[in-house]
Amino acid sequence: MIVKHGMNYLTVLNSARNHKLAPPLAVLRRQQFLIRVLGVRGENRMQGSKFEADSDNILRAITPVFDPNRHKGQAGKIAVIGGCREYTGAPYFAAYFAAISALKIGADLSHVFCTKDAAPVIKSYSPELIVHPVLEESYSVGDRDKDHISRRVVAEVDKWMERFDCLVVGPGLGRDPFLLDCVSEIIKQARQSNVPIIIDGDGLFLVTNNLGLVSGYPLAILTPNVNEYKRLVQKVLNCEVNDQDAHGQLLSLAKQIGEVTILRKGKCDLISDGEIVKSVSNHGSPRRCGGQGDILSGSVAVFLSWARQLILADEGNLIISPTNPTMLGCIAGSALLRKAASLAFEDRKRSTLTTDIIECLGRSLEDICPAC
Amino acid sequence: MIVKHGMNYLTVLNSARNHKLAPPLAVLRRQQFLIRVLGVRGENRMQGSKFEADSDNILRAITPVFDPNRHKGQAGKIAVIGGCREYTGAPYFAAYFAAISALKIGADLSHVFCTKDAAPVIKSYSPELIVHPVLEESYSVGDRDKDHISRRVVAEVDKWMERFDCLVVGPGLGRDPFLLDCVSEIIKQARQSNVPIIIDGDGLFLVTNNLGLVSGYPLAILTPNVNEYKRLVQKVLNCEVNDQDAHGQLLSLAKQIGEVTILRKGKCDLISDGEIVKSVSNHGSPRRCGGQGDILSGSVAVFLSWARQLILADEGNLIISPTNPTMLGCIAGSALLRKAASLAFEDRKRSTLTTDIIECLGRSLEDICPAC
Repeated sequence: MIVKHGMNYLTVLNSARNHKLAPPLAVLRRQQFLIRVLGVRGENRMQGSKFEADSDNILRAITPVFDPNRHKGQAGKIAVIGGCREYTGAPYFAAYFAAISALKIGADLSHVFCTKDAAPVIKSYSPELIVHPVLEESYSVGDRDKDHISRRVVAEVDKWMERFDCLVVGPGLGRDPFLLDCVSEIIKQARQSNVPIIIDGDGLFLVTNNLGLVSGYPLAILTPNVNEYKRLVQKVLNCEVNDQDAHGQLLSLAKQIGEVTILRKGKCDLISDGEIVKSVSNHGSPRRCGGQGDILSGSVAVFLSWARQLILADEGNLIISPTNPTMLGCIAGSALLRKAASLAFEDRKRSTLTTDIIECLGRSLEDICPAC
Repeated sequence: MIVKHGMNYLTVLNSARNHKLAPPLAVLRRQQFLIRVLGVRGENRMQGSKFEADSDNILRAITPVFDPNRHKGQAGKIAVIGGCREYTGAPYFAAYFAAISALKIGADLSHVFCTKDAAPVIKSYSPELIVHPVLEESYSVGDRDKDHISRRVVAEVDKWMERFDCLVVGPGLGRDPFLLDCVSEIIKQARQSNVPIIIDGDGLFLVTNNLGLVSGYPLAILTPNVNEYKRLVQKVLNCEVNDQDAHGQLLSLAKQIGEVTILRKGKCDLISDGEIVKSVSNHGSPRRCGGQGDILSGSVAVFLSWARQLILADEGNLIISPTNPTMLGCIAGSALLRKAASLAFEDRKRSTLTTDIIECLGRSLEDICPAC
């Protein structure tokens, strides 16, 4: 029943969003009515907590309906900056998991920018990804060539930048100083082009040590796990993690860094843009196999792109809450991963691997928001 | 019925083990009662032999229940030292089988340390493993560089050592002298860090020629097959294998080497730590496809880690028999492999491959010890 309502609602939303200019008044009114009735403004319809996001309805609201007139690329072009040599312990698979998850959710194209060594392996996992072996690490670059090579690396990524709807920076990136310097420049270019950025894994190591990279950029999302969050809190708030006031502390952290959105991963995912805090705690799995965070970053990238497209297309007439596309992307991405993890666990129990969860992304999205 | 009881027992055990300090007396009493009733102290409730371990109940007792508050890594981080060039006949797949089996049983993270040549192949088998291409062989190392490179290799592994719950040394390792020298140093580092070590395959060749590497280390497990056992007996006991007194000879062998645990693989698996002998003979498959020993080493690594966590957390209050975590790990690991091999054989008969058995690990564990 909810799904059906979701579809009706979506149809209306979509008819609105297909207008390049403001949608006709009748459509807008109907849209506002449905949003009220179906509770996409869901702050007060919580699952146990007043902070709980109405995640399934949000996911339905921002997922585009299929339209035969749309062409390749319109459902999203995602790029992952990650995947390097494993000497540093950063696994190649992280970049693969993030990129393939984006495709499995519905992005049209998914790119990976990685080192030369990583490229053949990432390619061998799937023929679906566009893999660019352009990153370089210190060991292969002489001191004299650093400036020149750094410029080349940044230019290689930048020539694609305008085409991307979202960048995921960090999965399997490693901590090579030269590589991280290049990635800092790539982040700056993305900001100049107004491309949203999800920062995860080793990207958080980079950003925690150089907060200026994301400070004041409302299209940046940080997705820390327990340890990464602890380091951020210590660095920014100069104190320890306070779980008694988890919501308040997250709000302060996002505000203090400045305009960014933070998705704090945990048993219950907490999300704040410095203005409001939302939580997503439905579904989920007790299995903690490595790589689930990478699925999340790819998933958030897609939903953020969709939410942003929707909001831009409606030029402010769309009523949806929260209104910030980064918040919407985080809520929907978190909800979808949790649902997929729960389906995979039902099936595989203790032997659930991250690839099993990825295989459940499609079914999970279909359950919440049928394609047709 | 047994499963149901097993779950109740587990619940009680877990409520005990969640206490950081000693569990309340009532919980302990109930736990002891259940152990008596359900026969986890199972020495005298044998399947045909007074040595037969009560393996299913032991497996249930040491497998952790899921707790949504746990985070990635807490269910085990395993590392396999193996996988080298195939010139020596040591197959890459051995390291892969051991590492992926650990994940499929429920470890959160599984690492492989191998040579550069082996890394892309092992990675291409699965994106789930963290592969470190750090081992070096004689052919690629000049005499002058040996000391320097050896130190580098050992340091590369050592910087991860504290994070590992168990090391598996040997699957697909090969017998290159320089490589084995490095591995000897890695074993010494693991001992210093109190990390349990499973020695299998070419690792047994190394250890048989240098018993000091494991002698006196109670967290070492050797898992010899027929031939490897024969060489161990000849070297240590200076005699031939005596199947008339298989239990007595195994006990003497473990005692003679000093404090190690030996799992002698065969139609019936025999396990001794020099104090007691146990056998596991239930289930199993007549198919002898290569690689089953690698599943066993990965499996034992996970159960040993869980048994050790459980025993350490209960600070001596937990009543379980045998009490040695290496014995418990061997019994549970052996039981699970035998069950998975039997399920795979039921399904595939003569065409059963090792990958089929790996695919049955999850279902086997679920049959014996449901996740929820």
